[in-house]
Amino acid sequence: MRGFAQRSTVEAAWAWIDSVLPRFEELRSESVDLDHLAGRVLARDIVSAIDVPGFARSMMDGFAVRAEETYGATLYNRLPLRIVGTCYPGVPHSGTVSPGEAVRIMTGAPLPTGADAVLPVESTETDGDIVYATDQVSIGKHVGQVGEDIRTGTLVLTAGRELRPQDVGVLSSIGVGKAPVIVPPSVRIVITGNELLPAGTTPEGYRIADANGPMLMGLVRRDGGVATRSDIVCDDPHALEQALCAPDDVILVSGGSSVGQEDYVPKLLAERGELAIHGIAMRPSSPTGMGRLKGRLVFLLPGNPVSCLCAYDFFAGRAIRALGGRSKDWPYRRVRAVLLRKLVSTVGRVDYARVRLDGNAAEPLAIGGASILSSTTRADGFVVVPADSEGYAAGADVDVWLY
Amino acid sequence: MRGFAQRSTVEAAWAWIDSVLPRFEELRSESVDLDHLAGRVLARDIVSAIDVPGFARSMMDGFAVRAEETYGATLYNRLPLRIVGTCYPGVPHSGTVSPGEAVRIMTGAPLPTGADAVLPVESTETDGDIVYATDQVSIGKHVGQVGEDIRTGTLVLTAGRELRPQDVGVLSSIGVGKAPVIVPPSVRIVITGNELLPAGTTPEGYRIADANGPMLMGLVRRDGGVATRSDIVCDDPHALEQALCAPDDVILVSGGSSVGQEDYVPKLLAERGELAIHGIAMRPSSPTGMGRLKGRLVFLLPGNPVSCLCAYDFFAGRAIRALGGRSKDWPYRRVRAVLLRKLVSTVGRVDYARVRLDGNAAEPLAIGGASILSSTTRADGFVVVPADSEGYAAGADVDVWLY
Repeated sequence: MRGFAQRSTVEAAWAWIDSVLPRFEELRSESVDLDHLAGRVLARDIVSAIDVPGFARSMMDGFAVRAEETYGATLYNRLPLRIVGTCYPGVPHSGTVSPGEAVRIMTGAPLPTGADAVLPVESTETDGDIVYATDQVSIGKHVGQVGEDIRTGTLVLTAGRELRPQDVGVLSSIGVGKAPVIVPPSVRIVITGNELLPAGTTPEGYRIADANGPMLMGLVRRDGGVATRSDIVCDDPHALEQALCAPDDVILVSGGSSVGQEDYVPKLLAERGELAIHGIAMRPSSPTGMGRLKGRLVFLLPGNPVSCLCAYDFFAGRAIRALGGRSKDWPYRRVRAVLLRKLVSTVGRVDYARVRLDGNAAEPLAIGGASILSSTTRADGFVVVPADSEGYAAGADVDVWLY
Repeated sequence: MRGFAQRSTVEAAWAWIDSVLPRFEELRSESVDLDHLAGRVLARDIVSAIDVPGFARSMMDGFAVRAEETYGATLYNRLPLRIVGTCYPGVPHSGTVSPGEAVRIMTGAPLPTGADAVLPVESTETDGDIVYATDQVSIGKHVGQVGEDIRTGTLVLTAGRELRPQDVGVLSSIGVGKAPVIVPPSVRIVITGNELLPAGTTPEGYRIADANGPMLMGLVRRDGGVATRSDIVCDDPHALEQALCAPDDVILVSGGSSVGQEDYVPKLLAERGELAIHGIAMRPSSPTGMGRLKGRLVFLLPGNPVSCLCAYDFFAGRAIRALGGRSKDWPYRRVRAVLLRKLVSTVGRVDYARVRLDGNAAEPLAIGGASILSSTTRADGFVVVPADSEGYAAGADVDVWLY
């Protein structure tokens, strides 16, 4: 048993992560059909090969007319036109609109030849096959022009975009039935600890139920990764080494991450691969490590559940989001709030403090222990005290990241 | 062809939706295992049946001691204790810590009988089986007490909560392996229109590719519904009636929602069920309808894609979120911004205007047509102009809802 000889800064850990992440262009992509694209990250720019719409179309229900024939029309000076046909969406009028004529037209229907405007139904009165214009329209009025929505050659969506539902609609409308998106990183969750019972079983004696496995499953999914977890791995070097060799992009190991005699994983990683960072100047989550093993990114997360959550959010989540082509930033919304009580920290150490929000007042939760997971369910979010600060006084304005 | 005789207000449509939604207590629930709980909505309160932790445990790596025996210890007044055993997590020390003794202890290990504090490893020096205290600790120091995280009988999570990953960790730690959550509503997407080609096919001639089907799939999933869509339904009363009878909780019909002669769905709904609202004082999405048919909620969404998106977000999304036990509010984040150009509206009508954000400056997008779906991909969000307003002047502070 010994403490960490020295601790890395949070910034140094971030810099290491960023240095080993592939560039966006190097991420693998796959082709996915429209119904499953929303929320995925576009791998390449999408340029339209067509005009949308591909033809002039009516924007209203009404009559396709030659605009000049409506000039001067009012309710008291109704101008008659002869109805010579009907245009439905997808079904054009076969003939031409000649002087003195009008064609009944529905929203979305192609404008017939000869017509140059649409007279809305509200500006007409009909009597048999005669329609009276009761208002005038100018040329092009209520007509959607070719390419008005999207022109051929337009850059419609750029690589790296997290696709919105309406983006998928746009892809569909330009005839793109599948789009290239980033393959989500696969993440193996390895839970270690002889004292642990499987998640969700009733604790008994001196053994506790694993809380980190199911929590990490949810965190990884939130960040766009594909998570799997296996049975709890006992604190045995051979079993741990096997678990570290799972065929995944990222390995998250919960527990045994410190420098105690039963903390085998840091040693394993140092011997078999690279233990780049071990021990970080923060609270909680100081006994966090990270490195690489045979092409996999490995994160050593403390077994204490609050530390595990915090270490995941600070480090592993950053890597998983980036490996999926997403922003490295936290997926939490940030609000400004006023501290109700002071928050004490130590210079040289980043602090992660859970707070409850009441309006714009942020109350630090009294219980600060790394094992008190319920503090993160009672809290609305957290405040980060940077390393160069001794904390914040009561009444200070702070940023709160909302869970 | 005629216009709407009169239009309902947005508020009247919301009031109708809210009046027909079941109460939260009436929503169906299902039991789901831990790994799939994050993001789901809890159906019932969860009360802990156990204490967490269930035993006093060490919060540090160090030595379990009788606190009073460390009183006065400093680096210059080292106090010796004999090491009589080791406690690992899950593995208690079999004996008692007697005066003059200490037990090596790991973080999370049960505190042995006789000890009342943990001396951290940093406050010790060891020499064979003797440990020297170099600092003093008080009674209870670095010891996690029984029930410190969660006490038996505590209300841990309340019904209606959208479960966070850490909530799932808490459920696991109190021995809950499955939890009751709200069954997501099933939503059938019915796309109508003779002019439509299947989503993602290249438009040809006067036919266009359906954009609304895949867009609605993404919107429904975002709001927690389970969406399915079938082939495009042609504008034929019998085919439409068949489609409306899908065995789902909610039916979304895109297209044919207005009062034109080919708009069969409103008539169908009025004849066979209830057409409660038809025509809404808003732009776009004025030709929106809603009602009920054989226990299903039916929303008639305009075929124009911007109108479809807007009508979904204003009305159908509200119902789908509530049917899944979620907040009726928009899932969009709201920011304050300053309008760069004026936004003109008409009193008596709600306007939905797409804007681009540059810092806190919001620029209304020039193209306002309901058919210009790309406006919703170029926009960062939208501004809602309420019915009692003539619009906003340039420089006005407005709320922008971010897509």
